[in-house]
Amino acid sequence: MSSIYDVIVIGGGLSGSQCAADLKANGVNVLLIEARNRFGGRTESIKVDDFWYDLGGQWMGGTHNILKSVCNDLNIQPISQYNEGNHILELNNKHNCYKGNVSTLNLDGNLENTIAIIDKMSEELDPAKPYDHPRAKEWDNITLSNWVNDNVKGADIIKILAWFCKVCLAAEPTEISFLWYLAFIKSAGGFDLLAGVRGGAQQDRLIGGTQQISEKLARERVGQFKLNCKVVGIHQDNAGVTVLIEGGQRLRAKYVANTIPPALAGRIDYKPALPASRDSLTQRMPMGSILKTIVIYDEPFWRRDGFSAEATSEHGPIVSCFDYSSNDGKSNAIVGFIAGQDAREWGEKSLEAGKKDVIECYGRWFGPQALSPKNYLEKDWKNDEFARGAYLAFAPPGTLTACGKALREPVGRMHFAGTETATQWIGYMEGALESGFRCSKELQERLKHDQPSIIAKL
Amino acid sequence: MSSIYDVIVIGGGLSGSQCAADLKANGVNVLLIEARNRFGGRTESIKVDDFWYDLGGQWMGGTHNILKSVCNDLNIQPISQYNEGNHILELNNKHNCYKGNVSTLNLDGNLENTIAIIDKMSEELDPAKPYDHPRAKEWDNITLSNWVNDNVKGADIIKILAWFCKVCLAAEPTEISFLWYLAFIKSAGGFDLLAGVRGGAQQDRLIGGTQQISEKLARERVGQFKLNCKVVGIHQDNAGVTVLIEGGQRLRAKYVANTIPPALAGRIDYKPALPASRDSLTQRMPMGSILKTIVIYDEPFWRRDGFSAEATSEHGPIVSCFDYSSNDGKSNAIVGFIAGQDAREWGEKSLEAGKKDVIECYGRWFGPQALSPKNYLEKDWKNDEFARGAYLAFAPPGTLTACGKALREPVGRMHFAGTETATQWIGYMEGALESGFRCSKELQERLKHDQPSIIAKL
Repeated sequence: MSSIYDVIVIGGGLSGSQCAADLKANGVNVLLIEARNRFGGRTESIKVDDFWYDLGGQWMGGTHNILKSVCNDLNIQPISQYNEGNHILELNNKHNCYKGNVSTLNLDGNLENTIAIIDKMSEELDPAKPYDHPRAKEWDNITLSNWVNDNVKGADIIKILAWFCKVCLAAEPTEISFLWYLAFIKSAGGFDLLAGVRGGAQQDRLIGGTQQISEKLARERVGQFKLNCKVVGIHQDNAGVTVLIEGGQRLRAKYVANTIPPALAGRIDYKPALPASRDSLTQRMPMGSILKTIVIYDEPFWRRDGFSAEATSEHGPIVSCFDYSSNDGKSNAIVGFIAGQDAREWGEKSLEAGKKDVIECYGRWFGPQALSPKNYLEKDWKNDEFARGAYLAFAPPGTLTACGKALREPVGRMHFAGTETATQWIGYMEGALESGFRCSKELQERLKHDQPSIIAKL
Repeated sequence: MSSIYDVIVIGGGLSGSQCAADLKANGVNVLLIEARNRFGGRTESIKVDDFWYDLGGQWMGGTHNILKSVCNDLNIQPISQYNEGNHILELNNKHNCYKGNVSTLNLDGNLENTIAIIDKMSEELDPAKPYDHPRAKEWDNITLSNWVNDNVKGADIIKILAWFCKVCLAAEPTEISFLWYLAFIKSAGGFDLLAGVRGGAQQDRLIGGTQQISEKLARERVGQFKLNCKVVGIHQDNAGVTVLIEGGQRLRAKYVANTIPPALAGRIDYKPALPASRDSLTQRMPMGSILKTIVIYDEPFWRRDGFSAEATSEHGPIVSCFDYSSNDGKSNAIVGFIAGQDAREWGEKSLEAGKKDVIECYGRWFGPQALSPKNYLEKDWKNDEFARGAYLAFAPPGTLTACGKALREPVGRMHFAGTETATQWIGYMEGALESGFRCSKELQERLKHDQPSIIAKL
């Protein structure tokens, strides 16, 4: 065994890269390891015709203050999300055009009122411990769909809430715990921030793509890292932790930061075995189902016709799409999402068949020119070996009250990060970074209290 | 690489042992491998004072015809479950004594009517493909609790359905899909068979315990096996399958039978990676939570007082208990279950504290003599490294319709067994054996269609 690190950070996504960078900045001898041949985790950028497209996490929101600060520090520049012109809401086989907020439309039911009720309930929660709320059990025992069916009037509003769930959480309202949903809403600061472009979660994109955040953090700020390094075991003893790498390598540290999402983290061999509560959690938080598509055109023809390319539909397969053009002519594209059960069904189709359905969708909304794209990109995150779903892991009913406490609770010398463990913007890049900083702080605290003799030995 | 087997069966529980035994009986060159140092999986028997107690699967039901035949063949003898005398239903802080069926009690609500409705709905399902039923999506989108709250009148009946769920499924009614619940009921042939002793699922115990079934199958019928052999990888290529064992051993076969329950099977390294539908399934079927206790006394004092030791309670922690005496004086004991959320809470307690709560429970029901046991045994299946829960994996809402088809669908050269894949008595020993036979038949079919040249080579 060649080196003993203070900390090994497992996972080179945003949370792991930030955790390692923060540890390094605080004088900790840290090694960052990543299973892929790249950093970025659930952010992934690819260059097509000299433009970087994000196949994963994409937007920097108006209140994503940690992300803003990190990007500023790394000299990564934002560009505004285009949303001039008419948005489309496809409902009951009818196109409804609107500007600004969807609630300006004449809908069956009162959307603003419903949102206000959900926001109010969510505000009562501490997203760090939603299971401690007096009504936690009641809310965790039902799905979002149950609550909506019992409390929301108006077929249009119920549909809009369902799309919102699919787009924001990559899961069906019938799958997720209502308590977890409220914690998610609270962690973002409310419904409008999640849905919005200006000031909201979809405010800016990043020039050069989002993957570069992790790449720059790892390469420029951490320095000490290993790619293509898949962890298969985490074995703890009284003196430290041995991290077993596929292929036989063994790395040794005093502590580890485990930033892998719960379901995948459960696939590592732990010695001693995980406590039942943590193991149960890893069995109970599956990844969402999302298929991200990018259709590239010769020109942003929709703009000419007064469309923003922002659309939402109940007929799909695209549940929601946005303009993905660069303004300088390098990119003219629409980014669209297929989510939840649709993602599972379209995931079974061929690339050609999927493309056909997607561009027909755009043809319906933005005219026949949409049927002749220049290029088509698609990423089904369920097929990504080191993600096996996205954007985030969700909690089915009963999970948070059964074993939610295990999300962030260290196990011996192992601490946890990852956007699922965030208390702000759970599931977003912002949440990933927050968790990275929090985990770094925890580990610095641990190192500070280590016996001097052990520190001296290192 | 020393040997190339026709089939490697992974997992020496009931399904794997039976699958391997059936393959062997049909002339297949089969190797059975098991991670534990014993066969039996979620059946486990321990000898205390010359009597074998089952810490896991325990009863042979009246319609468990495969199990009966296998036990007969292996010369394992049944003994009737004692249920003479008064049963207890503890409800609203009151002991209700009854004989025979709980529905003879004066309850708030009509239990028989409710059971008839559930049985009727379940009868419509094909438990091999519940997701194909016209109402599958509707039923899979709600939990058992949702359905009960909307359709059942009478507080007592709602409580009884909840206990029944906890006792039979080791899960809360708020956690499980109603579609999956109906499939489970159907697979057993109806509610009464599940609940019953005479003729029902709790009719007989086995002299010498249930673990011996797998032990005998493996040692006497399979012969070719390896214990202490934990599978960490299953790598397929065009010609066969390499099974990677912890410690570095590599085994080679034409096909594999994977009998590990979904969540744990997801923890193996697959090359190529699992298809998204199968991987998603492994993320979405957690193991139930059950803590089994056995309290051993000097004599079966409850019988003297006219009690059967069969009791059900809403106050717990024991949700259900039965007589575990041998009639020849070797054993005088009560077996009791702590299930669902209670199992998670009592799992955090010390053995001493758990014992105290359990015997206080029996003291309340059967008198002060219950407070002075001779011995106390407890098994928390969540802590079992190779089970991580029991009795079976459950399906939260949305799971069966999203990826239920992947339960039994082979992946390349890998076929699946295990009680979760059964279509009769899902979750029971009977279901495990059924799945073992079914999987063996599938593999024999595959081998039959192999090119003769390959067979000749072997």
